[in-house]
Amino acid sequence: MAGDHKAFWIPGDFDTNEYPYTVCKLSEVDNSELVRSSTSIAVRVAPDPQAVQTPLMMKTSDGLYLNLHEAALVNYPAMQLHVDHKSLALLTSLVPDAVGNKAYLHAPFATPWRTLIVSDKAADILSSRLILNLNEPSRVGDSSWIHPMKFVGVWWEMQTGRSTWNYSDYPDSLGADAKLIPNGRHGANTTNVKRYIDFAASNQIPGVLVEGWNTGWEDWFGNWKENVFDFVSPYPDFDVRELSSYAASKGVQLIMHNETSGSATNYERQMDTAFRFMNRFGYHSVKTGYVGKIIPRGEHHDGQWMVNHYLRVAQKAAQYHVMLDAHEPVRPTGLQRTYPNWLACEAGRGNEYNAFSDGNSPAHETIMPFTRMIGGPMDYTPGIFRIKNYSSVPVRQVHTTLAKQLALYVVFFSPLQMAADLPENYVARPDAFQFIRDVPLDWDTTLIREAEPGEYLLIVRKERGKDNWFAGAITNEKARNLRLRLDFLPAGKKFAMRIYQDGKEADWKNNPESYQILEREAKQGMEVPISLAPGGGAAISIIEMP
Amino acid sequence: MAGDHKAFWIPGDFDTNEYPYTVCKLSEVDNSELVRSSTSIAVRVAPDPQAVQTPLMMKTSDGLYLNLHEAALVNYPAMQLHVDHKSLALLTSLVPDAVGNKAYLHAPFATPWRTLIVSDKAADILSSRLILNLNEPSRVGDSSWIHPMKFVGVWWEMQTGRSTWNYSDYPDSLGADAKLIPNGRHGANTTNVKRYIDFAASNQIPGVLVEGWNTGWEDWFGNWKENVFDFVSPYPDFDVRELSSYAASKGVQLIMHNETSGSATNYERQMDTAFRFMNRFGYHSVKTGYVGKIIPRGEHHDGQWMVNHYLRVAQKAAQYHVMLDAHEPVRPTGLQRTYPNWLACEAGRGNEYNAFSDGNSPAHETIMPFTRMIGGPMDYTPGIFRIKNYSSVPVRQVHTTLAKQLALYVVFFSPLQMAADLPENYVARPDAFQFIRDVPLDWDTTLIREAEPGEYLLIVRKERGKDNWFAGAITNEKARNLRLRLDFLPAGKKFAMRIYQDGKEADWKNNPESYQILEREAKQGMEVPISLAPGGGAAISIIEMP
Repeated sequence: MAGDHKAFWIPGDFDTNEYPYTVCKLSEVDNSELVRSSTSIAVRVAPDPQAVQTPLMMKTSDGLYLNLHEAALVNYPAMQLHVDHKSLALLTSLVPDAVGNKAYLHAPFATPWRTLIVSDKAADILSSRLILNLNEPSRVGDSSWIHPMKFVGVWWEMQTGRSTWNYSDYPDSLGADAKLIPNGRHGANTTNVKRYIDFAASNQIPGVLVEGWNTGWEDWFGNWKENVFDFVSPYPDFDVRELSSYAASKGVQLIMHNETSGSATNYERQMDTAFRFMNRFGYHSVKTGYVGKIIPRGEHHDGQWMVNHYLRVAQKAAQYHVMLDAHEPVRPTGLQRTYPNWLACEAGRGNEYNAFSDGNSPAHETIMPFTRMIGGPMDYTPGIFRIKNYSSVPVRQVHTTLAKQLALYVVFFSPLQMAADLPENYVARPDAFQFIRDVPLDWDTTLIREAEPGEYLLIVRKERGKDNWFAGAITNEKARNLRLRLDFLPAGKKFAMRIYQDGKEADWKNNPESYQILEREAKQGMEVPISLAPGGGAAISIIEMP
Repeated sequence: MAGDHKAFWIPGDFDTNEYPYTVCKLSEVDNSELVRSSTSIAVRVAPDPQAVQTPLMMKTSDGLYLNLHEAALVNYPAMQLHVDHKSLALLTSLVPDAVGNKAYLHAPFATPWRTLIVSDKAADILSSRLILNLNEPSRVGDSSWIHPMKFVGVWWEMQTGRSTWNYSDYPDSLGADAKLIPNGRHGANTTNVKRYIDFAASNQIPGVLVEGWNTGWEDWFGNWKENVFDFVSPYPDFDVRELSSYAASKGVQLIMHNETSGSATNYERQMDTAFRFMNRFGYHSVKTGYVGKIIPRGEHHDGQWMVNHYLRVAQKAAQYHVMLDAHEPVRPTGLQRTYPNWLACEAGRGNEYNAFSDGNSPAHETIMPFTRMIGGPMDYTPGIFRIKNYSSVPVRQVHTTLAKQLALYVVFFSPLQMAADLPENYVARPDAFQFIRDVPLDWDTTLIREAEPGEYLLIVRKERGKDNWFAGAITNEKARNLRLRLDFLPAGKKFAMRIYQDGKEADWKNNPESYQILEREAKQGMEVPISLAPGGGAAISIIEMP
C-alpha cells in the first residue's frame, strides 16, 4: 500500500467472519484483544494478530477507496491478508488444513481471482460487478425453480430465550431406551409452527423457517461430536406430515434447517437422505449451519476441504431443486453466479448478535455492504421491531431504530430475506410492517445515491419488471439529513410514496422504536428530505399509481 | 510381564500391519530400523520405537504361551503396546487423530475388550474363541446371502509386472478433453477377464476378482488426492455389461474392487452409488483398499475415525447384500461375528510382498496364525505355483515350496480365499491344482495337532456338513517330520486320501516347485508320516468314499 490507509477490518480467522469491524490505520491493525474477548463466537482460530479477512475495505487520506477480495473461491483455501505494519505490505495467507498444508491441486488448475476495486467514489465500490463477473456462468441448467423468498421463522424466539431449540433440558445420554423429558419450552412444536404459517399466509410471506425441529439439540454443541443430527428425525411434538400439508394448504413453504454442528462428514454421509426428505415433504429451501469445530477434525471452516464441502452441498441442493442459505460457511466470492440456487450466506456478524452478545454497533450496517457483502448476498435477518426488553438480559437491545430495520431491506441485498421478529411484534405495528410486506427481493435497477463506509448509505432499487421503487437510508450513531432526488422516476407518471422514518425524538439508544410514516404523491424530479436519527434509518416505497 | 518373554511382534504403526515379524526378547524390542527400511510399505507412521502391534504373541522361558489383543474394536482407536525395556510393563497406547486426541465418546460407552489368552499349549491359543465370543451377535438379519467363496483374480499378473492396473502410462492430467493413450498392457480388459472367467468356470471356482477395471489408476497414488476413483466408471476396454452377463452365463461371480487410495471421505460420499452399481451388475462381494495416506488428512488407518469408517462400509455392504474383504484396514478384532458379511481382511503382510519386495520369510506363515489371524480371517492370497522367475526382478521368489502353498488353504482360515497365481500356472500342474479345487472354505471342526509359533503347524479341518477332512502342515526354514494320526475319522468308513507333499529334494530356496502326490486309502487310527522340506509344507485331502 502506498500509504497508511484507513482500514475496515475483522480478524483473519480460520473459522469465522462473525466479528465486529474495527476501523483504524493499517499500521495499527492488531486483532489479538478482539479475538480473545469475542467469546460470543463459538469457534475462533486467529493465530496471526496482524491478519485480516477479506473483503478488506480501505480509504486513503486523499479520498480514494480500495477494496481487496477474491472471486471464485473453488477448491482452494480462503485468502487472508497479513498486514506488515512497517512496509504496509499486505501478504496473502491461506487457511491451512489439518496437517498444516494449504491446498492439494492437480495441474493444470486455476487459483481464485484476487480482486481489487478502486474508485474515488465509495458508491462505485458497491456498484461494481467485478466479483460476480469473474465467476463462471450458471451450471444449474433449468433455474425456473429458483426464486427469491421472504420468510419468517421460529428462530428469534429461541435467540432471545423465549423458547428452545432442544425438546428436553436433559442431554440424550440417558441410555438408548430412555425417553426425552420435554421441557415445555420447545419452539418447533406443531401448534407454534402453525401460528407462524398463519401469520405468513395472511401477510403474503412465502416462507417459514423452523429451527430445532429435529432430534439432537440436547447435546449438539461444544463436544466435537461427529454424529449429532440425522436431518430426518423430528421431535415428537413436530408433526412433519401435518405441517407440510398445512403449510401447502395455506400457500406457504416450510424452510428446512440442517444444522451440522460443524460435522461436515456426518452431513455428507446423509445429504442424499436429507434432500430426499425435503423433496418428499415439500421443502424447497434449506438453511444449513456450521456452528462448532469442523469435522474432519483439524480442518477449518475456511480451508480447502470445507470450501469444497460448501460447494458440494450447493451442487447436491441443485440436483434436488433446493435453494441454499448457508450459515457459518466461508465468506462468499461470487459463486452465486455459477450456482444460483445458493442464494445467500451468513458468513458475517448478523442481527443475531444483538440477541446473544453485546451486539452490533450502529455503524456496523454501514460497513457491511463494503466488506462482507462485496462477495455476495447475506442473510442478515433484519426486521426487529421490538428493540428493547426482548431478552432476559435487560441491558441487551438492538443498536438500531425501528425505521433503520426497515431500511435494511433495501440497503442489504439478499434474495432470501427474513422478517426476523416475532409475529406478535409485527401485528402490534401493522403500519410499519406494511413496508416489509411491500418490499420485493428481486430488483432490476440499483442506484447507490449516498455512500461512505462506517457513516451512511442511501440506496434506491427498482422492483424487477415493475415500476415500483424502494429506497433505504441508514446512518451510524450520528444523526443526518439526506436528500433523495426522484430523478429516476419516469416522466409523466404518478406514484404513491410512503416514507417510514425515525420519529422526531428517536435515537437508537433511548428511543429506538419511535417512527413516523409520511404519505405523499411522488413524481419525477421531486426532492425528498430524509431525516435520520442517531443510529437511525429511513425506508421509502414509491409505488406506481394505476 | 513377569519375565523377559520371547515376543513375536511387528512395529506399533498407526497406519499399517504389513511388517515382517521380529522374534526377540521383550527387552530388545526396537522397531526403528525396521520402520525405516520397510520402504515397500506405502504409508508407515510409527513414532514410538518401543511400540508393537497386537495381537502380540509371547512365550515365556518355561513354556507358557501368552497372547494379548483386543476384541470388538468399535468407535475407538486401535490399541498398541509400548514395551518398557526395564520394567517389562506393556503400556496401552491409542492411535491418535488428526489433532492428537485419542477418542470422542458419548457416555455411557464401552471400550473394546482387552484380551489375554494364556495356555501351556500353543495349540490352545489358536483354538480359543475368546475374541469372537466377546463380540456382539450378528446384526445382519437375513444372512442367507452370505457364503464362503474361493476366487481367482486379475491381480497377480499386475503384482508381478506382466500387466498394469492403469490403462495408460500417462497421468490423466492432460486436460479434461484429452483421451487416455492406452499402454497396451492393461490387465482388466474384457478378453483377459473372460479368460479368467473361463478358467474359474471350468474349475468350480465361483469368483473372479478384477482389479484396475475403473478409471483413475494413472495418477492414483502418492499425492494424497481426495477424488481419484468414482467406483462406477470402467476403462474403455472393460465392458462391464458384457462381462457381467458373460460371468453369469458361466455361473461365475465377478468380485468388485473399490480401491480408495486412502480417501475415505471420497468413498463415503460415493458408497451408495458404488453399491447400487454392484447390485445392478451382479457383484456380490467387494474387495476394498486403503493404499495411501488417509483422507480426512491427518487421520490414520487405525484411529477412531477410520475404525468407524470400516464398520460403516461393512454396514452399508450388508444393506446391499454385498460381502466385504477389506484391504489395508485396522487389524480385525472379531467383528466378523457381528457383521458376518465382513468375511475377511488383509491388515497384515500377505503373499503379495513376495511380488514387490524382499518378501516374507519361511517362518512368516508359522507366526501369522498366532498374531494377525487371532483377530479374524485374512485374505493372504495363497496358491502361488510358479515360485521363481515370475518377476522382472530376477532375485525375487516366494519363500515357500509349492506344497506349502497348498497347505496354507487349511492352515489359514478365510471364508474368502484366493487362488492367487495365473491360470496358466495352474493349468500346467493340474494334479497339484486338484487340491485347490477340492479344499472347502467352510468347516465345522478344527483340530490343531501341532503348533509352535515361528516353527511349524499341523491343522486338520472337517468340511461343513460332509465327512471330508483336510490337513495342512507347514514349517519354517527347517525340514521336519511330523505324524498325523487319523483318530478323528469315524470308525468303519473308508476314505480316499491324497497327500500333496514336498518332493524329496525340495527346499524353498533352490528347489521350491518340486512336489509329489501320494494316494492311499485312509481309515480311522492310521498314522500318516508327513515330511516337510525346508520352508515346506504338506496338504492332505481325505474324502469319504461312496
